[in-house]
Amino acid sequence: MGVTITLEVLEQFTKIVGDNYILTDNESLAQYGKDETERLLYLPQVVLRPATTEEISAILRICNDQKIPVTPRAAGTGLSGGAIPTHGGVVLSIDRLNKIIDIDEKNLQVTTETGVITEVLQDAVKEKGLFYPPDPSSKGSCFIGGNIAENSGGPKAVKYGKVKDYVLNLEVVLPTGEIIWTGANVLKNSTGYNLTQLMVGSEGTLGIVTKAVFKLIPYPKHDMLMLVPFHSLEGASAAVSAIFRAGFTPSCLELTEIDALKITSDFVGNTTVPVDDTIAAHLIIEVDGNDPEALMKDMEGIATALEPFDIGEIFFAEDTTQKEELWKIRRRAAEAVKVVGYTIEEDTVVPRAELPALINGMKELGKKHDFKVVCYGHAGDGNIHVRINKEGFPNSYGHPEMESILTELFKLVVELGGTISGEHGIGLTQKEYLLLKLDPIQLSLMRGIKKVFDPNNILNPGKIFD
Amino acid sequence: MGVTITLEVLEQFTKIVGDNYILTDNESLAQYGKDETERLLYLPQVVLRPATTEEISAILRICNDQKIPVTPRAAGTGLSGGAIPTHGGVVLSIDRLNKIIDIDEKNLQVTTETGVITEVLQDAVKEKGLFYPPDPSSKGSCFIGGNIAENSGGPKAVKYGKVKDYVLNLEVVLPTGEIIWTGANVLKNSTGYNLTQLMVGSEGTLGIVTKAVFKLIPYPKHDMLMLVPFHSLEGASAAVSAIFRAGFTPSCLELTEIDALKITSDFVGNTTVPVDDTIAAHLIIEVDGNDPEALMKDMEGIATALEPFDIGEIFFAEDTTQKEELWKIRRRAAEAVKVVGYTIEEDTVVPRAELPALINGMKELGKKHDFKVVCYGHAGDGNIHVRINKEGFPNSYGHPEMESILTELFKLVVELGGTISGEHGIGLTQKEYLLLKLDPIQLSLMRGIKKVFDPNNILNPGKIFD
Repeated sequence: MGVTITLEVLEQFTKIVGDNYILTDNESLAQYGKDETERLLYLPQVVLRPATTEEISAILRICNDQKIPVTPRAAGTGLSGGAIPTHGGVVLSIDRLNKIIDIDEKNLQVTTETGVITEVLQDAVKEKGLFYPPDPSSKGSCFIGGNIAENSGGPKAVKYGKVKDYVLNLEVVLPTGEIIWTGANVLKNSTGYNLTQLMVGSEGTLGIVTKAVFKLIPYPKHDMLMLVPFHSLEGASAAVSAIFRAGFTPSCLELTEIDALKITSDFVGNTTVPVDDTIAAHLIIEVDGNDPEALMKDMEGIATALEPFDIGEIFFAEDTTQKEELWKIRRRAAEAVKVVGYTIEEDTVVPRAELPALINGMKELGKKHDFKVVCYGHAGDGNIHVRINKEGFPNSYGHPEMESILTELFKLVVELGGTISGEHGIGLTQKEYLLLKLDPIQLSLMRGIKKVFDPNNILNPGKIFD
Repeated sequence: MGVTITLEVLEQFTKIVGDNYILTDNESLAQYGKDETERLLYLPQVVLRPATTEEISAILRICNDQKIPVTPRAAGTGLSGGAIPTHGGVVLSIDRLNKIIDIDEKNLQVTTETGVITEVLQDAVKEKGLFYPPDPSSKGSCFIGGNIAENSGGPKAVKYGKVKDYVLNLEVVLPTGEIIWTGANVLKNSTGYNLTQLMVGSEGTLGIVTKAVFKLIPYPKHDMLMLVPFHSLEGASAAVSAIFRAGFTPSCLELTEIDALKITSDFVGNTTVPVDDTIAAHLIIEVDGNDPEALMKDMEGIATALEPFDIGEIFFAEDTTQKEELWKIRRRAAEAVKVVGYTIEEDTVVPRAELPALINGMKELGKKHDFKVVCYGHAGDGNIHVRINKEGFPNSYGHPEMESILTELFKLVVELGGTISGEHGIGLTQKEYLLLKLDPIQLSLMRGIKKVFDPNNILNPGKIFD
């Protein structure tokens, strides 16, 4: 996009990161020019892979002086295009900041660099009997830094919350190159504005998070899982709020509708989980805790709360293998439906009692505009992922007809009291819908905040808003 | 402080709020010129008691035009001087915004005006089987709006979190008079910067919060309470982190040291709770949940985790009366020690395993500078309230010797990885200590944010920072 990086600047970059960690070959530029969002590619001029906070600071000082756009990149698993370098310039990868610095068993905290893979962090703390709950579907490959940028969730969020609920303190390199810690390693903090929470979900536009301190909780000793088939999609979505109203807080409460279920079942070669033609949707319900008897009572209580609904036979996962099989069908839904042509994963979220209205509305929209639609997701939070399939349209971004469909969908979401992203962020692809939810005053405050942090607009420019 | 409010402006205010809700008599000005912090009094020119968001908006438009300082006031129970009108001008009381608008049992949410008393809100949702946990000691008189401004906690925070963990969406009147909602009534939101979290804990300096939407949780059906006497204060504080490391998350874990205990015990006429001379401190430990048998196991497990410590006989509260008696001694500690001359409640917070170092450090400081010190508070969070008693010094604010003692205390807190306020805020009295914890870059970001929201610096000027 017309950015010029002089040879002199490239030499400075090389001095900072070393010869092996500055990439300018076409293959690398292409690799770092996209993420998991859509079939979009924007080439940067150069990719830098610094190893330390100080290197990142040095790079940002230069880019701020020279007004060179910098797109921070974690694992590139994002679904809103946040890591796509639309303005060219530098892609700054945090993949080498991959050390878990300290698991503090005395204080139930972990300090980690942000290029660590989420599941690697989860496994490391689990070995000490500790739990870091946020678990996006991509947890096997995504980075902690990306999770912070998008305020990621996942199935466990319904009981345990999102990234924002675990972050205590962040080391951040500001776009001007200055390094700050945003908070303190404490559980309660009323010491000035909450810069920690402001960074979470700011999608790499306010600073590059290089270290994070998270609180941890004791790992629950037991969990139980059941799968409930519903004969109507509306029934399944209505049942979600009935479970909470009955006084239960499942550790996961996921919905998958039949179309997604069948596609994924074929895709993973499922033989364990019953999928028959009378079913319209499944709920996967998990409870966890330390006392198996109490969990059994919860399972019975939830089953009782579901009696008024038109359900099939409840399937209780008996052992780890069955549990894994069941989770596989939920976790791999996104991948499976993508393979068969569903291309856009939207991230709608509504108050949970509005789920039936949302799901009915999106199905009607599909009929009206002649597209296929599947949905699945974190029904317990009211956060449903919608995927659209319309022949000839591999992308929605930049496509007027798809955009008008999505505009209708998001208007419905907002009418129902919801918003257009629950956990994926706005990034590139959702930003033109932002004013369906935010008003110009909110947007003007956000722009003002951006300017305070990034006066030259060098850091992830063109994301969230222009 | 030299602010002139013209007769014409007073007439405009009168038109907005009506004759009965504009106060200029000396008695009212004195009443609204102080809060619960210290013996400080700053008179405003006028007190306004608007009834609606729109009235507040109209008032702020005028004040912004005329550059008249506005100090927002909830119930005036704050402990850092946030509601004291140091710059004169207008005190804007939200006490007439006292309606609970909607308890949404389908979505487990409540929408309320912010002049509602915290306990009134808690009782109203409890009637529907729902739980709003944040419970500052002043819950019987403080307002939801003040709790949002300070990001209040309380005993339940150790398991259930603070105000920030329940806020979904806020209606805010900006200093310029514009009205926004900060978020959406949903459990997950990654739609632009988190203005909701930025407002929480901003101490009335960024906007006046007029309505709040909180998530609620099912009210736990049972709780059990025990009191554990320790023969050393260090043992009591060390035991706190042992309980969590053993895998338990109590719903309250409070510490009261013997001096505070004796004073409070006398003050409330306690006969139930054993207080003998061999005791150095008590821990109050509560667990809650839906299954009494599971709770009993937790109590036994916690007792086992405490065996290595030098403790007296554990006292299990048998019934509601005993529980209330026990809580009374904890909850009224602040009031009791204030009556006998302890004047300053500090709000230190450290990683919980550092509690012994903090408590030892503050006792040593007391010896060194010849002052009495008591401590009590939310040990489970590492959040300990410290009160100092030094003859002849009723206040710390503006008193060089007391300030030098507090500087030493806060330096220790920061060295231990903690911060100077866990739940009371910085307000007026703590602001000169802010740079012990924050660096100038953080402060400059905060000032920049303040300027975005409040370009004329009319709203609660001189609070948090100058």
